[in-house]
Amino acid sequence: MHAPQQSTAGSQRRPNIVALSGGVGGAKLAAGLDAITRADGGKLTVAVNTGDDFEHLGLKICPDLDSVLYALARLNDPARGWGRANETWHFMRALQEIGGEDWFSLGDRDLAMHVERTHQLRKGIALSRFTADVAARLGIHATILPATDDVVRTLVHTEEGALPFQDYFVKRRCEPTVRHIDFPGAAEARPHPALLQTLADPALDAIVICPSNPYLSIDPILALPGLRAALRHASAPVIAVSPIVGGDALKGPAAKIMRELGAEITPAAIASHYQGVIDALVIDERDSPQAARLDLPVLATRTLMHCLQDKEFLAREVLVFAREIARRPATLEAVQ
Amino acid sequence: MHAPQQSTAGSQRRPNIVALSGGVGGAKLAAGLDAITRADGGKLTVAVNTGDDFEHLGLKICPDLDSVLYALARLNDPARGWGRANETWHFMRALQEIGGEDWFSLGDRDLAMHVERTHQLRKGIALSRFTADVAARLGIHATILPATDDVVRTLVHTEEGALPFQDYFVKRRCEPTVRHIDFPGAAEARPHPALLQTLADPALDAIVICPSNPYLSIDPILALPGLRAALRHASAPVIAVSPIVGGDALKGPAAKIMRELGAEITPAAIASHYQGVIDALVIDERDSPQAARLDLPVLATRTLMHCLQDKEFLAREVLVFAREIARRPATLEAVQ
Repeated sequence: MHAPQQSTAGSQRRPNIVALSGGVGGAKLAAGLDAITRADGGKLTVAVNTGDDFEHLGLKICPDLDSVLYALARLNDPARGWGRANETWHFMRALQEIGGEDWFSLGDRDLAMHVERTHQLRKGIALSRFTADVAARLGIHATILPATDDVVRTLVHTEEGALPFQDYFVKRRCEPTVRHIDFPGAAEARPHPALLQTLADPALDAIVICPSNPYLSIDPILALPGLRAALRHASAPVIAVSPIVGGDALKGPAAKIMRELGAEITPAAIASHYQGVIDALVIDERDSPQAARLDLPVLATRTLMHCLQDKEFLAREVLVFAREIARRPATLEAVQ
Repeated sequence: MHAPQQSTAGSQRRPNIVALSGGVGGAKLAAGLDAITRADGGKLTVAVNTGDDFEHLGLKICPDLDSVLYALARLNDPARGWGRANETWHFMRALQEIGGEDWFSLGDRDLAMHVERTHQLRKGIALSRFTADVAARLGIHATILPATDDVVRTLVHTEEGALPFQDYFVKRRCEPTVRHIDFPGAAEARPHPALLQTLADPALDAIVICPSNPYLSIDPILALPGLRAALRHASAPVIAVSPIVGGDALKGPAAKIMRELGAEITPAAIASHYQGVIDALVIDERDSPQAARLDLPVLATRTLMHCLQDKEFLAREVLVFAREIARRPATLEAVQ
C-alpha cells in the first residue's frame, strides 16, 4: 500500500477488490469475494496463478484458472476439492484401455474446458480472452484474469532433481523433498495489462492475497516483472489471508514445503514470506496467540470455509479490515 | 485379379484376406471377416478409408478407422451405428455450456481415441502405428491399416459449392445436391506399404471391397497412386459386396448421391462404378433379378448384417465365392 489516505467514500461504497489466487483454497475466498461484490453491486478482479499450467496429452491444462472458474460458476466439486461436481470418468477409463497416460485425472465434463482452450489458443486467442469468454458463458460476475498471458512454469527443485510442478504435485504426490522453487519464463513474462491497470485504480478497496500456497501459487504471480511494484504503489491495502490454520496447512503441500524450506508453520512465517508485499494479515482465530509476534496489522477470524456462508463471512471480514487499514495513518510504509 | 490360377491349396487352407473398408457398413463385414479368419487361424488385413478424417476442436478424428477398430474390438454401438456402446455425452454438454462447436458429437469414451491419437500424431507417430498400437491394446486379431498415412481429404462439390466431407455429411446432413467428389491429397499420397505388400501376397485368398459407400468411402482408397494397379495385379480375386439392398442403400447417403450423379440404385451401377477393379460382385438376394444384367460373376446372398452371425455368414459366403472364382479360368481379364 502506497501512502494510504483517508478514504473519501464511506463503508457503504460499492466494494472494488482485486484478489490474487491459486487453486482450491484461493478459489474459495474468491467465491466469497464474488458473492459480496455481486450482492453489493461492486467489482472483483481475480488474478490467477498460471505457474501450474502444463500441457498434457497435447491439451493445455490450467488447474488454478479452472478451479476459480468452476468455483465462481458454482460448478466445482466441494467434496473432492478440485474439478467439477457430478463429474464422470469415462474418458479416463477409455484412455487407459488404449494405453494413454493416466496419472493425471481428467473428468468428462472438465475435459471440455481443456479441449476448447487448447483449440482456441492454437488459433491465436489469448488465454485471458478465452477465460473471459468462458466466464461470460458461465454467468460469472467477476473478472477472472490469468496473471499473465505468457507462459510461466513452476519448477520444483527437489532432492531428486528439478520436477515440473504437476510431476511433483500429482505424479510424485509431493513426496520428494523440496530445496527451492523457481519460475522459468516469469522474468520475461508481462503481467496482464488489465491487472496492472486495476491495481493502479485509486478507487480500489483492497488487494487480497487469497489463502493459497504462497510458494507454489502466489509466488509465480509475484515473480512477474512489475507486479511487486504495482502492489507497493497501489492505493488499496494489500492483505494476505494466511493458509495456515492451527499450525498446519489445510490443504495441499504448503506445510510440508514450508518445513523443507526451513520455515515454521505459523502465520508469522507467512507474513515474513510476504514481507514488503503485504500491509496486513488475516489469520485464523486458532492462531491468534501468534499474532503478537507480527509487526503488521492482523485480523484473527474464522478462516475455515466449508460453505458459501463461510466464504462470504471471510470475504466481508477481509473487506471491513481493508477499509479499517486504509483509514489508519501510513506507518507501515515507513517501517519498510 | 491378374491371371487367376488354379489354387494349389484346398478350401481348408487358412484364409488370408484383404478388405477395403469405409465406416459402419464396411466395419460390419470386416468384423465378420475378422471372426472367420480368427476362428480358422487365418489372416485379415483391413485397409480403411481416411478421406473422412478431419480436424475438429483441434483433434484428429478418423471416423472410419474408429468404426473398424470399435467393431473389431466389439466396442461399437450396434443400435446407433457409430461410436461406442454405452457411450455418455457429458463432454458435449459441458462444451455447449462454454460455447464450443457442437455440431459433431463426441462421446466421452470415444474422445479418448481422438485426444490420444492427436497427441501421438503431434509427436510424429504415424497414423498406422498409432492404429496398430490401439488395435493391439484392444485385443484385435486383424491388421487394421489406414489406406495411407498421408493426408487425403474427401471434398464434396455440391450445388452450394465445395464442402469438406464432414460439413456435407454431418453439419449439412447430406442435403446439398452432389455434383462430383474429389480427393485432394490423394494424388500425392502413398498407399500404406503394408497394404501394397499384402495385396501382392501370392497366398492371398480374396480382396474384399466391403459394402461401404463406393463414392465416399472406397473411391478415396482407389484414388491412391498404384492402388488400382496393385488390385489388378493381385493373384487373389477382387470381390465387391454391394451396399445396395432391394434398390436402396441401407445406410447413409449412397442412394441419394448415386441418384444425383446420374446412376441407378442397382447392383449393376455398383459393378459399373467398380469396372476394371473388381472380378466379381456379391449382391443381396433381393436384388438377384438384376444379376442377369451383369457381365461378371455374381453371388446373390443375404447381405443384411444385424448380428455377428450375419456378419460371419456373409464373410464365409464371400470367402467361398472368392475361392470358386479363383478356380475358374481367366476369362474376365480378357474381356477388359
